Amino acid sequence: MKRLAILGSTGSIGRQTLEVVRSFPDRFKIIGLAAGRNSALLAKQINEFGPELVSLAGTGKLPSGSYRLVSPEEMVADPKIDMAVIATSGIAGLAPTLAAIASGKNLALANKEVLVTAGQIVTAEAERSGIAMLPVDSEHSALWQCLWGEHGSEVARLVLTASGGPFRQHSVSSLARVTAAEALQHPTWQMGKKVTVDSATLFNKGLEVIEAHWLFNIPYERIEVVLHPQSIIHSLVEFCDGSVKAQLSIPDMRLPIQYALTYPERWQNPQLPRIDWKKLGPLTFETPELGRFPCLRLAIEAGRRGGTYPAALSAADEIAVELFISGRIGFLGIAWLLERILQEHPSVSQPSLDDILAADRWARKRALEIGEDQAKLRTG
Amino acid sequence: MKRLAILGSTGSIGRQTLEVVRSFPDRFKIIGLAAGRNSALLAKQINEFGPELVSLAGTGKLPSGSYRLVSPEEMVADPKIDMAVIATSGIAGLAPTLAAIASGKNLALANKEVLVTAGQIVTAEAERSGIAMLPVDSEHSALWQCLWGEHGSEVARLVLTASGGPFRQHSVSSLARVTAAEALQHPTWQMGKKVTVDSATLFNKGLEVIEAHWLFNIPYERIEVVLHPQSIIHSLVEFCDGSVKAQLSIPDMRLPIQYALTYPERWQNPQLPRIDWKKLGPLTFETPELGRFPCLRLAIEAGRRGGTYPAALSAADEIAVELFISGRIGFLGIAWLLERILQEHPSVSQPSLDDILAADRWARKRALEIGEDQAKLRTG
Repeated sequence: MKRLAILGSTGSIGRQTLEVVRSFPDRFKIIGLAAGRNSALLAKQINEFGPELVSLAGTGKLPSGSYRLVSPEEMVADPKIDMAVIATSGIAGLAPTLAAIASGKNLALANKEVLVTAGQIVTAEAERSGIAMLPVDSEHSALWQCLWGEHGSEVARLVLTASGGPFRQHSVSSLARVTAAEALQHPTWQMGKKVTVDSATLFNKGLEVIEAHWLFNIPYERIEVVLHPQSIIHSLVEFCDGSVKAQLSIPDMRLPIQYALTYPERWQNPQLPRIDWKKLGPLTFETPELGRFPCLRLAIEAGRRGGTYPAALSAADEIAVELFISGRIGFLGIAWLLERILQEHPSVSQPSLDDILAADRWARKRALEIGEDQAKLRTG
Repeated sequence: MKRLAILGSTGSIGRQTLEVVRSFPDRFKIIGLAAGRNSALLAKQINEFGPELVSLAGTGKLPSGSYRLVSPEEMVADPKIDMAVIATSGIAGLAPTLAAIASGKNLALANKEVLVTAGQIVTAEAERSGIAMLPVDSEHSALWQCLWGEHGSEVARLVLTASGGPFRQHSVSSLARVTAAEALQHPTWQMGKKVTVDSATLFNKGLEVIEAHWLFNIPYERIEVVLHPQSIIHSLVEFCDGSVKAQLSIPDMRLPIQYALTYPERWQNPQLPRIDWKKLGPLTFETPELGRFPCLRLAIEAGRRGGTYPAALSAADEIAVELFISGRIGFLGIAWLLERILQEHPSVSQPSLDDILAADRWARKRALEIGEDQAKLRTG
């Protein structure tokens, strides 16, 4: 019996984690559930899974029960827990992640910002406490699976695949006119709004490059992005002898979630879809044009520079995406804003946690200013 | 330094094995070279690699030198050898393979007939002597790489890919008219004549299913064949959670040969080609139509029945392919002949080596008779 705490249980990854847990009622036990604002769904989850520990950042009515209300940090540190699923989004995931690592808990990590903003600190702490940090992203899960049993020194290149989003074939001039509604239509994955827009700009793939760098300890010059519109091959590893290993599956987040939860085992789950070779269409590959997708270039550039650049760019992107979704700036305005942040950010090298949080605050404030300037130009 | 004996050094796989050895002059040492009839090439190889042990089945002039002339069985049993590369073809590879196993040598196995005809005996002996039997076929090397680090009990299915050969899209009526010259034009691989025709009939893929069954101890109902005309994905493994792992590379036999020689390591070799994602066209998949490619069905059927059926069918196919290449029987005549052999063969269950060799002899004789009857009908 694996005893889990799920941070972000009411979000997209949290809900799908609970779907996986439902498939194995005798093998998983939910000890803790933590949510942000969706108290109604959390209440239902409490009734269904009967956790001992509950955390709610917002307010709302929760059912009475024998659970204890705690902070996310207390929850993940509880000795009853074997594994913490970090399914929150944003830099708020950082503190509970570090708390889980400090108390020796294995992690299933779905939160991008944890490694993007504080990769050096988090991987150093994880190594020191000897815990396993299992990726939940489909791309990193694919890389993890392809690297399993292989020697890190024999890796020539990590190749992250990207669907390319809804605008893969758009010209720059038509990219200038795309709407938020169009950007929110992802061709192959159902995800939250922020990550869907980030997939359309390819900023998301740039963040994943940074995550891959920290998770697998591979330098940036040996991490590539290849567009693969069908989202069947979730990533590939090229080895020094020219052999390439790939992980394939029908796009369904429950598979990488389940693999993180069951690793190093694989469990049979009839609810997960299978590839049907009779029906599988052609798998195609393209190299991304950085001219049309500057956000990919900018994110990787932030990763290469290191320091607090990734934290600043990640925070600025949250603001930029909000401004785009609310119609204040255009699609290309996202990259324009991020470029400015990268130019202006006073980065700190070898940053502390406080430096990272300060960079996050700086970038949000500055991004809002830049964005509002853009909005004025646009509407004025 | 890995000390090698190569049986079949003048054949296609033998020559490519020596190309790999040339890439690593400080890491491989050729101790033994054994050839069949090509004494001229063997002479050159002796001059270049200076083996201590030489074997030549046929006659011919060899250079004078300090080597010792031995039988293949003596060669592989020699204590100076770390690994025996079985790159011969045909059932003649069986005795030296068993000799190598008996003397505790790891094997790089390129000979199909060894496992097809005597899979049960060979795998039992290999297990008893604790040696590793490393596949050199691109498909089995791919499966081996995908299974590396995984648990056998979690394998749902092995999926062998097949290019489909030159007649993948031919109708049955046009298959009836294809010539040997057409059958010898393989779209993606440069190989010997026998295996090229076997690729056109898909008989080869059936033999590979039998080999995979023995190498990986997976029942036939969990081994599938999928057509993949580009020969980039060399095979796939589906796991019980729905995840699929694939091995990809530009078709070049030197890669699986090198992996068998260097396993469990991978060695950097700039001479091996790399996949260029910019240039890689679509990867497509089809399920094979057993109606048009009955040899695939017949080979798998022989495998399922077990006993001496695979030995008989494999031997009969050698005769059938010779008759086809010499123009005595048509392309569809190969399957017709094999069907008759499968019907008539008096199989022995749990066969001894002698039973297997007897089945081989019986099938050659009977296949010649059936083939000559066909030839008379055809020409008369």
